[in-house]
Amino acid sequence: MTDETPFFSAHVFVCTNQRPAGHPRGSCADKGSEKLRDYMKARAKELGIAGARINSAGCLDRCELGTTIVVYPDGVWYSCRSRADVDEILTTHLVGGRPVERLMLTNDQRELRPEQVG
Amino acid sequence: MTDETPFFSAHVFVCTNQRPAGHPRGSCADKGSEKLRDYMKARAKELGIAGARINSAGCLDRCELGTTIVVYPDGVWYSCRSRADVDEILTTHLVGGRPVERLMLTNDQRELRPEQVG
Repeated sequence: MTDETPFFSAHVFVCTNQRPAGHPRGSCADKGSEKLRDYMKARAKELGIAGARINSAGCLDRCELGTTIVVYPDGVWYSCRSRADVDEILTTHLVGGRPVERLMLTNDQRELRPEQVG
Repeated sequence: MTDETPFFSAHVFVCTNQRPAGHPRGSCADKGSEKLRDYMKARAKELGIAGARINSAGCLDRCELGTTIVVYPDGVWYSCRSRADVDEILTTHLVGGRPVERLMLTNDQRELRPEQVG
């Protein structure tokens, strides 16, 4: 579509959508996504990851799998539960260039896998 | 990075960041980005564009060029001023598969081009 180098080599969107309490789909904000976003921004800065940007996003429509994160232009989706998960995404994917398979979401995924819940 | 088909064939992020009044960089919300996002969501639904998702995003850090929009996984950036601009992005890019060159931002762009201001 465009021959240019991506403006951000890793453009990360963290869902920070908040639904009303008791909504059957839940929401990423209920699972602590705002704190995870804050941590990810600070940690990416500390690590000095060139060309990375960590953004908030509205509802990414995969609420059951949240906190949901998508990394573009790669198009890799993650479920992220903890600071340790954030660290792994930053160091393995954004720095190392390899996706974190344990945390990745497949397109047809509707529930978290056991290794994503712990 | 992943062999899967993109989860969203067009994942559109519209900056809805609001800075305090008088900030030298301005902000997309000051330029009406929330209304443009609402219109884009409604219009994409009306057009029945399969696989498209229109999301809000926090500050995309190209405030001077706002309302700023980025379409992934293509990685095409736009400055969008009006409903007509939104329509053109939806019909030409998301439906037609061709970027809207008039509205595109280049990586090194710091000011809007004359055809983007009108």
